[in-house]
Amino acid sequence: MYIVCSDLEGILVPEIWVAFAEESGIPELKITTREEPDYDKLMKYRINILREKGYGIKEIQDTISGIDPLPGAKEFLDELRSFAQVVIVSDTFTQFGMPLMAKLGYPTLLCNELVIGEDGMIEDFNMRIDRSKYSTVKGFHAMGYDTIAMGDSYNDLEMLKESKLGILFRSTDTIKAENPDLLSCETYEDLMGYIKGALGL
Amino acid sequence: MYIVCSDLEGILVPEIWVAFAEESGIPELKITTREEPDYDKLMKYRINILREKGYGIKEIQDTISGIDPLPGAKEFLDELRSFAQVVIVSDTFTQFGMPLMAKLGYPTLLCNELVIGEDGMIEDFNMRIDRSKYSTVKGFHAMGYDTIAMGDSYNDLEMLKESKLGILFRSTDTIKAENPDLLSCETYEDLMGYIKGALGL
Repeated sequence: MYIVCSDLEGILVPEIWVAFAEESGIPELKITTREEPDYDKLMKYRINILREKGYGIKEIQDTISGIDPLPGAKEFLDELRSFAQVVIVSDTFTQFGMPLMAKLGYPTLLCNELVIGEDGMIEDFNMRIDRSKYSTVKGFHAMGYDTIAMGDSYNDLEMLKESKLGILFRSTDTIKAENPDLLSCETYEDLMGYIKGALGL
Repeated sequence: MYIVCSDLEGILVPEIWVAFAEESGIPELKITTREEPDYDKLMKYRINILREKGYGIKEIQDTISGIDPLPGAKEFLDELRSFAQVVIVSDTFTQFGMPLMAKLGYPTLLCNELVIGEDGMIEDFNMRIDRSKYSTVKGFHAMGYDTIAMGDSYNDLEMLKESKLGILFRSTDTIKAENPDLLSCETYEDLMGYIKGALGL
């Protein structure tokens, strides 16, 4: 039996921090792991900026509500969920992801969690488990599932390679060239075709 | 971080085989594990009757489409999914469960699978893994989650007891008396209250 594990950002919704930086008008939040590879340091930097700008969790969620799924993503996911089991496997935080899940019809989101203070400000963040995407597909394997996984970034590679079928979706030329063993596509139509093929449909 | 694992039949929808026997007018299908404790034998008996009556997967799914979720179940699940991650953990088969998932807004369904022949008839069934409810919560634990589980029957007890919070919902007096360590309730309102309590909401 198969379960589909889909990355979130870049696959179904825009990069949340980049879109949030634009929606909120805080360009300092556009810095990503490309500029600051230390994720812990980057998150502390982001939390500090949010506090300085007076963005508590409510303001953040209101702003994220202004971000839409990628064009065609909801239709793709709706069709997929009508015949397959799907979970979203992401390194984002539930509090950021949930306003987007509302727009996607509440698929199950497996990610991380922010620690919110009594004043509504972000105090800290909890990473659910080490190598969370890898650990998630291994957990499904322990439940008796084979996984079909899709993602676009370096942090998806372990999940894709551990899966029966791993698909790079709208990834970079470098990542595609470095991983010729993975399928790759650019449209939801092709992605759906690969998944249906694996399911024998 | 928590994930909610909910049994399906008796919690969100009626007992599928019993409802199907009524909807299809095939009373022989009302026999359950109470009358025939050997599940393998029972499933083979059911598959034979379906073949005799000419019920292929299409007719079965059409009939199941006539079964509705329990009153209040959709509203309960919609509210729960708006703030928590939820999966349905069931011993049913995807092909039986999916018409009901459509009515519940396609929550993720973790269950078993029927083998369908080229003629559309049920040929066999695949149980995903041994002790599937137990293995499912253990899999989520390996992903870094604590589980909140709800169920009504003997086959739910392992899942409930392995969880941080296990809740018997509309169970029998016998099961409740035998398991005084588990919370128990009869209404969605109380169930929601227990879950929110565990999540600190």
